[in-house]
Amino acid sequence: MKSFCLFLILILSGITVSAQTNYTADSLNIRKIYDMSLLNGKSYNWLDHLSNEIGGRLSGSFNAQQAVEYTKAELEKLGLDKVWLQPVMVPKWTRGEREFAYVQTAPGVTRNVNITALGGSIATPAGGTKAKVIEVQGLEQLKEYGRENIEGKIVFYNRPMRADLIQTFDAYGGCVDQRYSGAEEAAKYGAVGVIVRSMNLRMDDFPHTGSMSYGDTPENKRIPAAAISTNDAKYLSGILKIQKDLELYFRMNCENHEDVKSYNVIGEITGSENPKEIMVVGGHLDSWDLGDGSHDDGAGVVQSMEVLRLFKEIGYKPKKTLRVVLFMNEENGLRGGNKYAEVAKSKSEDHVFALESDAGGFTPRGFGITATDAQFEKILSWKKLFKPYLIHYFERGGGGADINPLKDEKIVLAGLRPDSQRYFDYHHAANDTFDKVNKRELELGAATMASLVFLVDKYGFNNINKETSELAD
Amino acid sequence: MKSFCLFLILILSGITVSAQTNYTADSLNIRKIYDMSLLNGKSYNWLDHLSNEIGGRLSGSFNAQQAVEYTKAELEKLGLDKVWLQPVMVPKWTRGEREFAYVQTAPGVTRNVNITALGGSIATPAGGTKAKVIEVQGLEQLKEYGRENIEGKIVFYNRPMRADLIQTFDAYGGCVDQRYSGAEEAAKYGAVGVIVRSMNLRMDDFPHTGSMSYGDTPENKRIPAAAISTNDAKYLSGILKIQKDLELYFRMNCENHEDVKSYNVIGEITGSENPKEIMVVGGHLDSWDLGDGSHDDGAGVVQSMEVLRLFKEIGYKPKKTLRVVLFMNEENGLRGGNKYAEVAKSKSEDHVFALESDAGGFTPRGFGITATDAQFEKILSWKKLFKPYLIHYFERGGGGADINPLKDEKIVLAGLRPDSQRYFDYHHAANDTFDKVNKRELELGAATMASLVFLVDKYGFNNINKETSELAD
Repeated sequence: MKSFCLFLILILSGITVSAQTNYTADSLNIRKIYDMSLLNGKSYNWLDHLSNEIGGRLSGSFNAQQAVEYTKAELEKLGLDKVWLQPVMVPKWTRGEREFAYVQTAPGVTRNVNITALGGSIATPAGGTKAKVIEVQGLEQLKEYGRENIEGKIVFYNRPMRADLIQTFDAYGGCVDQRYSGAEEAAKYGAVGVIVRSMNLRMDDFPHTGSMSYGDTPENKRIPAAAISTNDAKYLSGILKIQKDLELYFRMNCENHEDVKSYNVIGEITGSENPKEIMVVGGHLDSWDLGDGSHDDGAGVVQSMEVLRLFKEIGYKPKKTLRVVLFMNEENGLRGGNKYAEVAKSKSEDHVFALESDAGGFTPRGFGITATDAQFEKILSWKKLFKPYLIHYFERGGGGADINPLKDEKIVLAGLRPDSQRYFDYHHAANDTFDKVNKRELELGAATMASLVFLVDKYGFNNINKETSELAD
Repeated sequence: MKSFCLFLILILSGITVSAQTNYTADSLNIRKIYDMSLLNGKSYNWLDHLSNEIGGRLSGSFNAQQAVEYTKAELEKLGLDKVWLQPVMVPKWTRGEREFAYVQTAPGVTRNVNITALGGSIATPAGGTKAKVIEVQGLEQLKEYGRENIEGKIVFYNRPMRADLIQTFDAYGGCVDQRYSGAEEAAKYGAVGVIVRSMNLRMDDFPHTGSMSYGDTPENKRIPAAAISTNDAKYLSGILKIQKDLELYFRMNCENHEDVKSYNVIGEITGSENPKEIMVVGGHLDSWDLGDGSHDDGAGVVQSMEVLRLFKEIGYKPKKTLRVVLFMNEENGLRGGNKYAEVAKSKSEDHVFALESDAGGFTPRGFGITATDAQFEKILSWKKLFKPYLIHYFERGGGGADINPLKDEKIVLAGLRPDSQRYFDYHHAANDTFDKVNKRELELGAATMASLVFLVDKYGFNNINKETSELAD
């Protein structure tokens, strides 16, 4: 057994030497990336402009068009190999005059409540809708109550996000069906409107909008749908317990229009060795209209732009082609993401990796990754390079709404995972504003993305067994 | 070799079965702790009172006394085995009327700058101090300039915190000598005052106070010292480049008084099996006076109280004695921490573990730990139990200013390590206020502390080799 042990030792020390060489070089490159982002970053300035000079960027709006022009111009300043606009038709929905709602607690006695129209909702009749309210804890409870209890009423969906779930996106996923399908389902029972508890883990006065769908509900059966702030959801639920015949009034002036032309904004550094292998980093350029869309997803936009700028600044020329794609219309249609994948497919482009940042500009913790076992193991072999930056989360599952249409058997999809505890305090609400983004946290996210892209570019996912061993310890 | 492999497999599977049993039971207990903190936590309400009803709690102030009385009363409500006050004499320094400062850029033309007295500083003369300014990048540069360039001037220490350091406490450690010893050192060269760039990684208008020392400088040689906001430090540095004879005026009304009596607040659950083995969780009750001390260290106070409450609520009776200690005077004297250790020593108490939370109420990431190799390895064997809560940081080094005096060859010291990126935005400044604390982040921190205390209580650090193997996988 002595010779066997000696053999093992030789092999292991060989691996260590090889790993050491790569590890040191890679460490230094990654250190350069973080230094550049933290000491001479551009992401925060870009976000300042997007948020404060332009503001909320709803698909089809003037602001969305301004954002297209601004980011294209900024990408052009970076000296990339190509910058272009990819046309895409997007839905156009306008909020109109701000919503108004109250509950009537006695004849002539009312209390206003904070609501906001859900994106895609129809308006109320011009004079508003006033009706009794029935509270439910979810879609499935409609059946239990039946048409006899629901018809002519406003359905109030009040299932809260679960505070015990550590990952707040899980809590969101557990509630968002009320917002997305609440109107479609309630209409089947003859409801005249829908009020949904905001997808917010905090108690406050901000109503949170978001996308909804009428499914195949005929136009004349569609009912208006709004979100209500968590504080007012609590109030409404409380007062309904003592006053079952309470009436709620709401008025909304939103409108769905014809689709309009918009764009994905794309910039590219063409690969020096394997230009046909394409890596994508991206976020979505559109946002809801209530705040300025700083976290959702101004942060992802500027971080993605920064990845390419960081490569230019540290003088790293990617072997594969690296594209930044600023997707249009993630929030209410996903037209940009679908268009990009459609064009890529029609051109038989070879996308090997796509990374999206669309979970806020908070301190990065790691990545959610959709990949084969071998691809995932390869990424895990790089994990230790991220330790100095407190990046620890490398788990399976994840990507991003905009890049998911690229999915095939081969591509690796990844989503940046920032700390999520505060995200739903701001998500789709009027307080998603620039001051909620911390400069360092944003910059750390950009550097974390760039570091992963650097490693994917350098090592790729071919010859996985051979190359993984070089980095394994 | 077949029999050897079989032997190995048998051993390993034995360990796995044993580990599984413990792992499952421990997992469930930790899940209970997190659920209780997130679903029925008390920490945020306590912090609301400390911050908004009481406010900044400078040692020797009325507010500090209110905080003593409030936390004692709240601990008494928890049904602990003992609650008591431990008297300690503390320094009393008062700020007096708010500071005022300007630079004179031309005859009759002035621009105000934002300063705040450093804690412990003497006042300026009643009419203020007006003098030319010499900018330095640190204490060592004084020697280089010499008395001929410094005498009669105000020394402006302007070395910024390093943005490239990922752990912001490292950046703080690299600058704080300017604040702590700046006046003592500048006085040796005949300076008449000191202005220190705020320990803040962000550019804003808040000056950040903090402790300073005159060392053994005789009273008649002491000079007043203030912090200046980062924005105004940038301005001052810029204008000095084009106007070397610029004069700065500042007026401060602070005063050092006789020591006054105050208290550490202590609550205890007496151990059910090993009452003489004592575990401490704590934070410091005092704070600076500019904000309300929510992050520094209201958060640590309420999280520590919550550890005991969580144990009571889930019905876990610790085998060892568990004490919460709310230390007085961490900020400008450490008298509370020293007193607690002194009394513990005089009573020959056996402290086996102490955990402090004094790095803000942000999302917890893990612990810094001062321990022997074997003790540290034992803690590492518990790491996987924390993974569902995204707690990943278990590194050597750490504890807390208040618990460090307990250090001996045996005790394990630990400090909660929350995300640190935003901490110095608020540290010791007027914007360290309740609204900067996120309820979930605070509650996650309390649960993380309680989980570690639970494991220390259950497994301890005796018989390390035997017990570690039970949990190792």
